[in-house]
Amino acid sequence: MDLKNNLRTETGWEVIEKSFDPAQVVTTGSNFMIGNGYLGYRGTFEDWGPDEYVACIVTDTWDQAEGSSMSELCNVPNGLYTALRVDGEPCSLNPASIRDYRHQLDLRYGVNTRSVVWEGQNGQKIAWESRKFASSHNPHLLVQRYRFKALANGVVELKTGISGDVWSLGGEHFSQCIPLEFANGLLALSLETRETGISIAVVEGIRLEGKTPEKVWTSTEGKSIFRIFRFRMEAGEDVVFEKVVGITHSNEVEEPLRSAREEVSDALDQGYEALWTAHSKPWEAFWDGADLQIEGDPEAQVLARFNLYQSYIATPTHANLPVGARGLSCQVYQGAAFWDQETYNLPMFAFTHQEIAHRLVAYRYDTLDGARRKARKLGYYGAFYAWTSGKTGDELFPDFFFTDVLTGRPIRNHFNCWQIHISPDVVYGIWLYYQASGNWEFMLEQGAEVLFEVAQFLVSRVHFKMDKNRYEILRVLGPDEYHENVDNNAYTNYLSQFSLVKACQVFDRMKEEHPGRLAALLEKTGIPARAREDWNDIADRLYLPAPDPETGVIEQFDGYFGLEDIRPDALRKRLIDPGEYWGWPNGIAVHTQVLKQADVIQLLAMLDGFPKEVLTANYEYYEPRTEHGSSLSPSVHALVACKAGHHEEAYRYFLESATIDLYNASKKVMSGGSFLGGIHTAAAGGVWIIIVRGFAGFELTDAGVAFSPALPAHWKTLRFALKVRGCRLEVVLSPNGIRVHGAPENPGKIHIRLPGAQAWVGPGETLGV
Amino acid sequence: MDLKNNLRTETGWEVIEKSFDPAQVVTTGSNFMIGNGYLGYRGTFEDWGPDEYVACIVTDTWDQAEGSSMSELCNVPNGLYTALRVDGEPCSLNPASIRDYRHQLDLRYGVNTRSVVWEGQNGQKIAWESRKFASSHNPHLLVQRYRFKALANGVVELKTGISGDVWSLGGEHFSQCIPLEFANGLLALSLETRETGISIAVVEGIRLEGKTPEKVWTSTEGKSIFRIFRFRMEAGEDVVFEKVVGITHSNEVEEPLRSAREEVSDALDQGYEALWTAHSKPWEAFWDGADLQIEGDPEAQVLARFNLYQSYIATPTHANLPVGARGLSCQVYQGAAFWDQETYNLPMFAFTHQEIAHRLVAYRYDTLDGARRKARKLGYYGAFYAWTSGKTGDELFPDFFFTDVLTGRPIRNHFNCWQIHISPDVVYGIWLYYQASGNWEFMLEQGAEVLFEVAQFLVSRVHFKMDKNRYEILRVLGPDEYHENVDNNAYTNYLSQFSLVKACQVFDRMKEEHPGRLAALLEKTGIPARAREDWNDIADRLYLPAPDPETGVIEQFDGYFGLEDIRPDALRKRLIDPGEYWGWPNGIAVHTQVLKQADVIQLLAMLDGFPKEVLTANYEYYEPRTEHGSSLSPSVHALVACKAGHHEEAYRYFLESATIDLYNASKKVMSGGSFLGGIHTAAAGGVWIIIVRGFAGFELTDAGVAFSPALPAHWKTLRFALKVRGCRLEVVLSPNGIRVHGAPENPGKIHIRLPGAQAWVGPGETLGV
Ligand SMILES: [Ca+2]
Ligand SMILES: [Ca+2]
Repeated sequence: MDLKNNLRTETGWEVIEKSFDPAQVVTTGSNFMIGNGYLGYRGTFEDWGPDEYVACIVTDTWDQAEGSSMSELCNVPNGLYTALRVDGEPCSLNPASIRDYRHQLDLRYGVNTRSVVWEGQNGQKIAWESRKFASSHNPHLLVQRYRFKALANGVVELKTGISGDVWSLGGEHFSQCIPLEFANGLLALSLETRETGISIAVVEGIRLEGKTPEKVWTSTEGKSIFRIFRFRMEAGEDVVFEKVVGITHSNEVEEPLRSAREEVSDALDQGYEALWTAHSKPWEAFWDGADLQIEGDPEAQVLARFNLYQSYIATPTHANLPVGARGLSCQVYQGAAFWDQETYNLPMFAFTHQEIAHRLVAYRYDTLDGARRKARKLGYYGAFYAWTSGKTGDELFPDFFFTDVLTGRPIRNHFNCWQIHISPDVVYGIWLYYQASGNWEFMLEQGAEVLFEVAQFLVSRVHFKMDKNRYEILRVLGPDEYHENVDNNAYTNYLSQFSLVKACQVFDRMKEEHPGRLAALLEKTGIPARAREDWNDIADRLYLPAPDPETGVIEQFDGYFGLEDIRPDALRKRLIDPGEYWGWPNGIAVHTQVLKQADVIQLLAMLDGFPKEVLTANYEYYEPRTEHGSSLSPSVHALVACKAGHHEEAYRYFLESATIDLYNASKKVMSGGSFLGGIHTAAAGGVWIIIVRGFAGFELTDAGVAFSPALPAHWKTLRFALKVRGCRLEVVLSPNGIRVHGAPENPGKIHIRLPGAQAWVGPGETLGV
Repeated sequence: MDLKNNLRTETGWEVIEKSFDPAQVVTTGSNFMIGNGYLGYRGTFEDWGPDEYVACIVTDTWDQAEGSSMSELCNVPNGLYTALRVDGEPCSLNPASIRDYRHQLDLRYGVNTRSVVWEGQNGQKIAWESRKFASSHNPHLLVQRYRFKALANGVVELKTGISGDVWSLGGEHFSQCIPLEFANGLLALSLETRETGISIAVVEGIRLEGKTPEKVWTSTEGKSIFRIFRFRMEAGEDVVFEKVVGITHSNEVEEPLRSAREEVSDALDQGYEALWTAHSKPWEAFWDGADLQIEGDPEAQVLARFNLYQSYIATPTHANLPVGARGLSCQVYQGAAFWDQETYNLPMFAFTHQEIAHRLVAYRYDTLDGARRKARKLGYYGAFYAWTSGKTGDELFPDFFFTDVLTGRPIRNHFNCWQIHISPDVVYGIWLYYQASGNWEFMLEQGAEVLFEVAQFLVSRVHFKMDKNRYEILRVLGPDEYHENVDNNAYTNYLSQFSLVKACQVFDRMKEEHPGRLAALLEKTGIPARAREDWNDIADRLYLPAPDPETGVIEQFDGYFGLEDIRPDALRKRLIDPGEYWGWPNGIAVHTQVLKQADVIQLLAMLDGFPKEVLTANYEYYEPRTEHGSSLSPSVHALVACKAGHHEEAYRYFLESATIDLYNASKKVMSGGSFLGGIHTAAAGGVWIIIVRGFAGFELTDAGVAFSPALPAHWKTLRFALKVRGCRLEVVLSPNGIRVHGAPENPGKIHIRLPGAQAWVGPGETLGV
């Protein structure tokens, strides 16, 4: 079927670009990318360079480029560089010379394929096709099969190798770049990063089939190394080569260059088909656990899979590392984790692939020392997680980020020091993983330490209001970044209480069941045993802005209702420059009720137990006041619209969230006009949340699993699987009902509640209504 | 002697403008003004109008002009309007036509005199002189004697009456303006203010002497009414008239027009000499109490008197009304009291004219309800005094005041809601008055109620930090307005503790001595008796930023030392527009240590008991970081420089403070380029503080009076009187020592401590070293 934005799909498992559109280079490069959580390779053409945003972003390579004060992941040299010339004319892609074109992303296996028929200015004609994937079996490897076929007689020059001429957002990262050619024919660039001194190796090898070249030579040009093959070809002749690129770095292996050489040699020996077979298995396992099958809405089907695909390739599965806010699609947002990791990216993995979810929560444990350092630096104690968290968990977000486009002055935003909900959000994520997996040993070994240190941070952060007999949390920034410097932000206060309660629960269970391990943890962390009483006291007396008794609306923060009540569209007219930041310190939204995203909606999306009237009242109050300046906003609106009974709006927000990237629907420009491409991984994660938690109404409580479906009216069926505490549940929804089937291999019974029926469902059993 | 800025003095009792300088119209109009605390009449020429900032500002006439949202005092029509024409040519002041010129302000009696010899384009020649004062006996009256003399034959037309064509900062205030001519020859304008509906009457009468006019007629022109006299004059002939203008309004008298008519008629009957005699007595009494006699520094002498003069005429003595930040010299700052009233204006009166000081503190009692309303409106209780306080004490300061000159956007400053030190400052003033006067009955009747309500406000405002076992005061703005939104501002916290301690002391003494009155007060205010324990607890555990153990420096607020450490001159280079506001939200000083004024210096100037090392350390730290963007800044620097032993700098800051107005030294432009004229009454009050508290080292403690002199090296003597608890002390300092004489009429002994001597000094006794 045809999709928007010049796209179509055939089976719901692929996205096809209908024709070449040079204006969409940024968007297509992100959407058609391949990756494996270790590296991301943009969906660009083989002969492109920095102007077309060619990038292969590698995780765990944080470095500050020359002249920059921002750490970012490196975009390494492009080992898949390949260019053709026919009779001296480069086979450049321009609409006038393209006779046939197909560009496809295969979602099931993460394969990017492209075929072109090209005609030159003097009648030259050639066809080529490439097919590439980032190995899911060995994440260091990019594998490509490339074929070209002369459609007229001519001299064809094939130039292929490693191009160092790639885009880098922050500037030059490599202080050293040594081109190497090895006796066995492999090419390599041996690099070293400027600030952090990481050694990175990019090794390339090819295996040529078919016609023998007339001449072959090697060329080093600047920071690049190529091999050039010259063929005198007759119409109908073709050449095929397989290429393997290996990328390793010293944060991961002892000797990057040697490892990469060995892996590339070995891979070339195995050959494309063997590499493909190894690669395909993890993908099949991924879809077996995570696929969302939708009948009756082919657009929704492909959108769901596209977002699952992007979620998966953005997430490191080989090590405990963060999910970047733009994944590995570009260097924007520093390849670092934000609060979105726990609130948007984690849920899908927590209920489908717990081994990956475990990596994400373990990453937060691994970065606890960074969070401790941040807390101490700001005058607190415990763990204050970084707003922008890389390898160590030290704060990467700079004090000055935006520039005031009207004056050119830097703006001091306080995302790094006032957006304290990040710490409770980390606890939320740990609790979610623990609830889903039942992994109490993880909690004992790692989770409890995070929970306790976050609780301690809150002890050091809250203030007590004597005359009101309550704790307050002052001067914060909620998820709604247009209102800095507010008190008693509803989201922050509720989530803080949540994390204090969980800390107390874990403390109590450890005291009961594992007193020795509790004592050891307290000794290790220096937390006094009586701290648990502080946590409990704060949880007890922390001010939680309640639904207004008359309207049911929860005030986003103290004084919010007193701000100017204007709507986003009317407010937008006050912009002097369209690139202005709307928030602190003097943006147009600051003194108004207009929100970047609605914190109360976010809260209602995350914590269960609010009555439906409250959900409805808050949805109806906040929705028209929300500008959706964040890509995180539509998905929680979709979810809460579901719960609030606004089904059409829920579907509209689902579409909005699911198409932010694919339909290039995110037109938001950052202040200062920074690069705006890249995959919005939180929105991608949000699509699973909307479908499973919203449309299927899935909820996990201490009692078990519950569903309150609100299926879009035109969907015939929705099928998906969940993993809960060791049990696989297969769920089928239709307009007539819902069936939940316990997989035969399940270790035991699990309690399921459906509208009008509930039961303990054992292995192989089904509950349906 | 010659002074700067085209001025000179002859005896130290007058300021003389040496020649007419049209460029100084704004400055001279303020400096040469006359007044009596009820009205201020700028030192402008009789025939001038709005372009020359003619103004007669009348207290207690707050009104919002058409289209304005700011209350300000009215500038009433100019009853002293007088213009001459000779042979049809207006005798306009332009340097080409002036043959002789003298403009003098007599400080001793508040008289403005001017004489001009004028020559026309056709050889006309005339001399005139005027002499005017604002009666100190009946403050409704302006009295003038005007004489002109033909120096060549010609037809002279004298036009005199009431001109409504005057400057008004905020716009038109009068919705009604009826010109009236009465049978007894009086002219009047009967006015009504637009917003507040105040009736104002301006009545004028003259008594003509000498030559009889050829023709007399009356003319109403717009909002003016004049009488025109035509004389055919020969060289040498002269005409003299006396004019009395009466100004009353309905906030003060029942029937303004009738009162003013009666008062003007009566005054004209009495005649100029009788009016002068009555006027001179309050002035003699003022100087008897307040004069600062300096031998050896004639410039300092006239500067001291000029500032005392301006302090006196700015201060309402007829009613409990505020001292405006620009007195009655113009409409800037809304004619309203700021915290300067207690900290800069009050001290001189408290130790020289306690009946006037009493009016100022009684004004704060009268406006307690306004302070209560403000507290409630912002979610607190008790008394949160207005940052900008007019008649009722309700907040006059708008939420949006400055405009960002770079973007044209309004700036939300938080002077009104975060500068909470105003309430402790009011307590400081009450305590100062009480200490100086010993007026315990005032404390019982009015002061205690203010102290208790301010203490209650603090209870509602502070937060307790459980883990640090201390109270904190968060999100404030100290006197240094470049740093909004700070925590634990040293000045605010110390002054808050001061006011809580005083509230407890008064509570305890009332409980002991006047339990019935205490009970009545608690019942009236609804303050529970246990509140006293809260006050004590907060005073006890309130965090007071202490001098750093190593450096002795007190941190101005939490995190101040971590800000960029740059000097004001270097910082100034970052301005894009010279009119930019330096402070919140994104001004150049916000993220630096550069201060508008130094809060710690202010604190050390006001509260005694800090060791000299601390004074020195803080002076040396903060002085180079202070931009002195406030006219309040130099005087506290002078005072603390004295105490810190930096005598030359103390004298330099004394000169700076004393000449802000007279030498037109205040070049500061407000953001948005508002009018910048007017008398800086706080700086005027500060001059007394520098000389008496700084150079003479006067201090009043519970034990008595002490002096630690630090006389400028070139001063031969400094003489002044003080009034302390009913005793008049006459103080003489010289480089050799100090003598303090108790006046014979003193009711008892008072304890005096001098360097190296102390004694109880009885009536007629002297202690000297
Ligand atoms: Ca709507
Ligand atoms: Ca200095």
